[in-house]
Order: sequence, then structure tokens, then C-alpha cells
Amino acid sequence: MIRTVDDNTWRRYSGVPLMVASLAYLVAYSWRVIGDVTGPIRPVLTIVIAVTWAMFIVDYVVRLLLARERSVWFRHHLPALAFALVPVLRLVRLLRFLTDLPGIKPTAGGALRSRILVYGVGASAILIYIASLAVLEAERHAPGADITTFGIALWWACVTVTTTGYGDYVPVTDAGQWVGVGLMFGGVALAGVITATLASWVAERAIHGQPDAHPATHGDVRALQEEVARLTALLDRPQTDPPASPPAAP
Amino acid sequence: MIRTVDDNTWRRYSGVPLMVASLAYLVAYSWRVIGDVTGPIRPVLTIVIAVTWAMFIVDYVVRLLLARERSVWFRHHLPALAFALVPVLRLVRLLRFLTDLPGIKPTAGGALRSRILVYGVGASAILIYIASLAVLEAERHAPGADITTFGIALWWACVTVTTTGYGDYVPVTDAGQWVGVGLMFGGVALAGVITATLASWVAERAIHGQPDAHPATHGDVRALQEEVARLTALLDRPQTDPPASPPAAP
Amino acid sequence: MIRTVDDNTWRRYSGVPLMVASLAYLVAYSWRVIGDVTGPIRPVLTIVIAVTWAMFIVDYVVRLLLARERSVWFRHHLPALAFALVPVLRLVRLLRFLTDLPGIKPTAGGALRSRILVYGVGASAILIYIASLAVLEAERHAPGADITTFGIALWWACVTVTTTGYGDYVPVTDAGQWVGVGLMFGGVALAGVITATLASWVAERAIHGQPDAHPATHGDVRALQEEVARLTALLDRPQTDPPASPPAAP
Amino acid sequence: MIRTVDDNTWRRYSGVPLMVASLAYLVAYSWRVIGDVTGPIRPVLTIVIAVTWAMFIVDYVVRLLLARERSVWFRHHLPALAFALVPVLRLVRLLRFLTDLPGIKPTAGGALRSRILVYGVGASAILIYIASLAVLEAERHAPGADITTFGIALWWACVTVTTTGYGDYVPVTDAGQWVGVGLMFGGVALAGVITATLASWVAERAIHGQPDAHPATHGDVRALQEEVARLTALLDRPQTDPPASPPAAP
Repeated sequence: MIRTVDDNTWRRYSGVPLMVASLAYLVAYSWRVIGDVTGPIRPVLTIVIAVTWAMFIVDYVVRLLLARERSVWFRHHLPALAFALVPVLRLVRLLRFLTDLPGIKPTAGGALRSRILVYGVGASAILIYIASLAVLEAERHAPGADITTFGIALWWACVTVTTTGYGDYVPVTDAGQWVGVGLMFGGVALAGVITATLASWVAERAIHGQPDAHPATHGDVRALQEEVARLTALLDRPQTDPPASPPAAP
Repeated sequence: MIRTVDDNTWRRYSGVPLMVASLAYLVAYSWRVIGDVTGPIRPVLTIVIAVTWAMFIVDYVVRLLLARERSVWFRHHLPALAFALVPVLRLVRLLRFLTDLPGIKPTAGGALRSRILVYGVGASAILIYIASLAVLEAERHAPGADITTFGIALWWACVTVTTTGYGDYVPVTDAGQWVGVGLMFGGVALAGVITATLASWVAERAIHGQPDAHPATHGDVRALQEEVARLTALLDRPQTDPPASPPAAP
Repeated sequence: MIRTVDDNTWRRYSGVPLMVASLAYLVAYSWRVIGDVTGPIRPVLTIVIAVTWAMFIVDYVVRLLLARERSVWFRHHLPALAFALVPVLRLVRLLRFLTDLPGIKPTAGGALRSRILVYGVGASAILIYIASLAVLEAERHAPGADITTFGIALWWACVTVTTTGYGDYVPVTDAGQWVGVGLMFGGVALAGVITATLASWVAERAIHGQPDAHPATHGDVRALQEEVARLTALLDRPQTDPPASPPAAP
Repeated sequence: MIRTVDDNTWRRYSGVPLMVASLAYLVAYSWRVIGDVTGPIRPVLTIVIAVTWAMFIVDYVVRLLLARERSVWFRHHLPALAFALVPVLRLVRLLRFLTDLPGIKPTAGGALRSRILVYGVGASAILIYIASLAVLEAERHAPGADITTFGIALWWACVTVTTTGYGDYVPVTDAGQWVGVGLMFGGVALAGVITATLASWVAERAIHGQPDAHPATHGDVRALQEEVARLTALLDRPQTDPPASPPAAP
């Protein structure tokens, strides 16, 4: 097979279908779980979920196969793996327009921080929603379970992701507990992302408006180095020359 | 309408009335909830709450309309939006005098850190108090609820904002659970603010009292650059001049 | 009154008595609570506790009165206030010998970090112990309380300070709940201290063993500035002098 | 005794046996606890556990005795102490190959961060697994205990290490509670490690791809210093020399 299709071409054509598939997945999964669908619509929804998920898996495998060095591509595209495993995460991409805020002239770190916060908060909201659906589906009809409505599931997911853990509602099935473990560790990571972003903001804010207090950059020193190099060049020209030849304007 | 009133003029005249309104809101809301007022005073308190809240909303809308570029103003004044939604937060401004501590010569970061901590702790205290009132009002008369006194509500709010979550008292109404979700995520953010401020303090403290260990600043390099520039100027003057012309005093 | 006694003199003479008082406080308080002393020894222990506590309060007030500018002294000696309110915290000072570890050549930040960790962990251990005593004394004989042994109190304090909050044991008295609130917020602060110290360590470790990768310091630039100044001085001397006069050895 | 064996020699010969012992320990301990072994195999497994543990203790003591300055060695080899106390932690070393990722050109901090995360996550996973075994062994046959299966123990360990603390399962024995205390404090430390690593990543990422925005390093300034020194040398040579002597090539 001649490798005439590369990753960029593939992504240009697969972008819109995958976004549509992601929305279809979200609607079908929400409908099946929240509506507790049992009639003939249930297999239809299940097929939609399966097909859209399969699309994401296929997309990931194709991109992996298209890559020149697959192990390198794998490590550089961990978010793509997350998108393949949890298709609705792709909807985070819709938040991209929020990170290019007109009217805010961001600093070097400011642009990164708003991107981290928008994507972090967006991904967390999606994960809380999907985890609520998953735990509800796992628990609802289990004996002894008390997470039986979507409202309770959402409340439980918030209590879990912030690691508050009242214990008023607790999953009792294996699947529900795995969802809980994911939310807990995700919550620890989310708290870490928020804290790290705040730390970066505090560090930058402390020197806000005082350009001379900013740490010296590599660029500052390079500019200075060029000036010294120019000076050295000046000195190295024969010094007994008549002054008739005017020095080159700096 | 000719735009003769700008944001600064508006704020000069609205500052004191809004602070009074904020205090009136606090008193009326506390009275209505803690006193569990049911007689003819209740509608009076409710009107005070409604009017003061409306004042904050009007203030926000007017300032938004006065702004030249509204989308820019919106993003640069997110705290003002928080003040409009939770009027008592404005009381945090009363803490301003605490951040200008005489007798402490603050470092660049020190002033920022004390401001962050004073406002952060102040806003947290106000939020815990208001959340206790809100959860008490939502739960008190709900069937099966156990948050029935202000003392319990305050205890529950502290247990929730620190994400401890014993589960001895848990809200059961929708409104009470929303208050809980706000407190939990607020608690994660508060912990992040505290940690980020401490990280900034540790970084600065590590080089405390050793000026030479401070990171080189842009200003340091700029001073050096000026010195090199002066040196270059010295070199560029014709060197065969008689020494009679004394060199310019540096 | 002629101010012939200053803070240093006072501390030289008060240091040993206060350390002894701190130990006496610890023993008397532990004995009274853990032993659940009821006989004639109880008033003796209570007097020891009251007297030692009074000593710390007196010490604090005297030092405050000795200070030239009291408001400055107050803000610069917040730890002293903590020692006055919780006398056993003074025992943290006994850990001082742990922070001067022979055989470890600490970096600028390393010395600070080991000091923060030793004092932070030491103060936390003392606070957990004292909080266990306080909650046990408050709860033990309260109706409906389940924190009735020192072992349970210690377990509850650990569960609370890490903000885990199982809820298997929860204080029901006002005093017990205040102890809990202190532990929860103390736990959030402790987690922040640990995280901030680790962040400082990661930042320093990333450039460990690569001196050239360390950030340029103010001292680096100052050394360079001196060299450029020397160069300028060289250039500013009359250049038509005979070479017979050798240049000053640098 | 002539000290002909040094630490490196010892480690070269002890490495493989200790890794095997570590695996044997893991298998024997898992078997004894999960299988709830009671027959004649139990003493065999207990002997394996005791012997492998003893090997780690002996290894540690021998290395401590081999060290020239024991107190220095002790402080520089705290991980070795952790390996001696919890033999399976040595298995973290097997993760070493994960930290040398081919195809990723790490930055100074990137290599450190991936090492911290791989070892941190690896050690956490091992600790959660071992803590689950330990709590199960302690609780299983205790009266009133509800941690009676390995699945419950694992769920409890995850709930504890993230400081979520639902309280649906809580240890009631002293041994089980000590395991819980270790997990809670370990969880606080783990969250700190994750946050600190993320903070380092955010700080580096903010200047990613902009070499001139990187902070000036000691090396930058040293390079500049050498250039200025060369310039000074140029200036210090007698300036009335005939230009016939060409200047030294820079």
C-alpha cells in the first residue's frame, strides 16, 4: 500500500463526521439511560452507541497505522486515545472558541491558563455527566442500590469528584464502583490542575505591571550578547586607521 | 443619549449606597432564615432582600451598558458579576484596609499574597455563612431533612467546604444539594488558592535575605545593557583625538 | 519605666521555664483527659494547666509590651501568638535539632524545605494529639456521643485532618465540632504546605546537577556588571599614554 | 575486617535475588490473604513472607554497615529504608524502563516529571494493593467488621487514598485503622506530588516553543561573561603595537 494519505488529510475529512458521531453518542446514551428505555427503541439506541463508538476506535486505529513511527505517535497523541475510549470527550473541542477570547491580550502564561481551565472544566463537566449516566445504568436495577434516579446520580458524582464523599449514596455494583474510582482519581487530578494553574497565575501576577521585575529571559541575555559581540568587532578592527573612514553606524 | 456618565463617575456615586444595600441584604436574609420569621415581618424582609438584590443587578447592567466595549468589560469585571449574584460578597471590600498593613514592607509577591489570603479567607467566610443560611432555608421544613438549626447548617457547611463530608448531615432537597455542590467546588478552589499562595511564599522564602540568589530580572539585564551601550559609545568616538578633550564624566 | 529589658534578654531567661511549662501542660492535660481523672487529683491537674497556660499568656503580653512598635511586633510574631494560645506547640521547637542535619549540604531551598517539613509535620502531630484530647474531653460524657475512648478520638482526628471524613465517628457537642472545624481547615492548610514544598522540590530537582541550567541570579548579573565597569574604566584612561606604564593588574 | 566490599559491588550481586524475593513476597502474601489459606500451606506461605522480608532487612543493614559515614548514608538512602519496610515497593524499580521513553526528547523538567509520575503512580498502585491485603487480613475475621472480601478491601482502599471517605466500609480493628491512617496521609502526599508535577508542567508549558521567553540561565550569563573577558583581554594588550601583529582569531 502506498502511503498517500497522511494524518492531516485524514483528520480534515474525519473531523465533522466524528463530531456528529460524538453528539449522536451523547444523545443515544443519555436517552437510553435517563429514559430507562425498555421497548423496541432500546436496541436502536444501543446500535447507535455501538456504531459511533466503533467509529472512534476505527479512527484511532487508522491514525495509528498511518503514523510513520507508531510508538512515537502513540505517546504524542494520548488525548486521541482518551477521545477513542470516551467518545463524548471530543465535545470538549467545541469549547475551543472560548479560549480565543477577543479583547483580552493574554500574557505568555495567560493564554495557556485560560486554555487549561476551559478544557479542564469542560472535560470535567462532561465526565461528571457521563459518569452519572454510567453509574445510574449500573445501579438502577441492582438489589440494595440507592442510586436510582438521574438527579441522585448527578449529586453522587459531584460529591465523589470533589472527594467529599458523604456516603449518603454509594454504588454497590462492580461497574458502579469502577465509575466511582475513576471519578475520585479524576477529582484528585482536577484539583491538581486547578491548583497548578492558580500557582502559575499567582507567580505571574506578583510581577504584573512591573516589567523590570520580570525574570530575565534567554532573549534578554541574547540581545546583550549581540551588543557585546558588536563591541568586540569594533575593537578588533585595526586601530591605527585614519579616522577619515567613519565607523559604521550601529 | 449622550454618554456623559462613565464607569468611574457611576462607581463614585453608587459605592456607598451599594455597601449599605449589601449590609441590609445580610441583615434581612439572616433575620428571615435564622429567626424562621413567619409573621407580618416576613414580607417586609423579603421586600428588603428583593430590593437590595435588584439594586446590585441594576448596578451591574448600568455599568455594562456604560462600557465602550461590552464584551471586553464583561471579561475584565468577572468579580463585579459575582457581586451582582451574591450581594453580600461586596462586604469583602470592607477587608481592604487589612491588606495595607503599615509596618510591613512587603516584597513584590508579599503584597499580592496578603491580598489574596485576606480576600480569599474573607470571601470564604462570607460564602460559608450565606450557604448555611441558604441550606437552612431550603431544608428546614423539608420532610426527612435533618439540617434544621443554624448551628447544624454551619457545621455542615464547614464539613462540606473542606470536602471532609462526614455524611452525618446531608441535604435532601434540590436547592440544598445545589448549595452543597457550590460549597464543594468552592472548597476545591479555596484549597487551590491557599496552596498556590503557599507555593509562591516558599519560592520567595527560599532566597530570603540573599539578594544575590534572587533570579536576575529584566531590569538587571537592562541596567547592564545601558552600561554596555555607554561603553560602545566611548569606543565609537574617534580615538586619535588629543587627550586635551577630557572624556565625558560617566 | 526605663526600658532596660529588651526582647532578647527576656527570651534568654524565659526560654527554659516556658519549655518546662509546656511539658507540664502536656502531661497534666493528657493525664486529666486520658485518665478521665475524677478524684482529688483533678483540681491539681486543672491548676497546673491553668498556671502553665497563664505563663504563656503573660510571656506573650510582656513581649508585646516590650516591643517598640507593638503593631509591627504583633504581625512579625504570629507564631508567638500561636504558642500562647496552644502552649504545647512550643514543643515544636524541640525539633530544631532535626533541621540542622550534618552531612547534608543543603541547597538554598533545601534547607528551607526540610525546616518547613520538620516543623509542619511536628506541629501537625502535636495538633492531632491535642485535638484528640480536646474532642475526647468534650464528647466522652455527652449523650449520644460515640467518641468515648482516646483510641477512637485519635482515629477520628486522623480521619478529619486528612479531610477523609468517613463519618463513623462524628462529634455532637459544640466544643467537639469546633475542634473538628479547626482540624479540617488545618488539614487543608497542611496539604497546601506539603504540596507547596513538593512543588519547590520538583522545580529545584529538575535542574539538579546542571549548574548551567540554573536560573541566572542577581549575583550572576552583578558579577558581570562589575566586569563591564572594569572594562569601561580601562577604556576611559587616556589612550595616548606610553605603554611604559603597565596596566594595573586586574 | 578489611572493607573490600563496597556498596556498588553489594548491589550488583544483591539486585536479582532481592527482585525475586520481592516477587515471592508479593505472591505469598497475596495467596495467604486472598485465598484465606488455613491448611498446611499457611505456615509455608508465612515462612516465605518472613524469609523474604528478612532478606530485605539484612540487605539494608549490610548496606548501612558498608557505608563510610552511616548517618550520611542513612539520610541519602531513605527510599532504601522504604524498600526494607515494604519489600514489594522494590517492584517499582521494574517501571524504570517506562521512564526512558524512546522517541520523546524530554526537556530538563520533562524527564524528571515523567520519572516522578511513573514511580509515583506505580508506588501508589502497589501501596493500594498491599494496603487492601493488609486491611483484609486484619478485618476479615474481626467481630462487627464489614471489610470481608478482597473486592471490598480494594474499593475501601481507593475511597481512602483519595480521601473521599464514604464511610460505607470502615476498619474497626487497630491494625486496620493503622492501614487506613497510612493510606489517608499517603493520599494527601500523592495528591501533593501530582499537583507539584502539574505545576512544574504548567510553568514550563507556558514558554514552550519560545526559546527567548525561557528564563536566563546561569549558563547564558557565563557565556556572556566569557565574551566580556575576551573583550577585556583585547583591550589590555598594548594599543600602540603595529597592526602587523594580527589580532588573535576569536
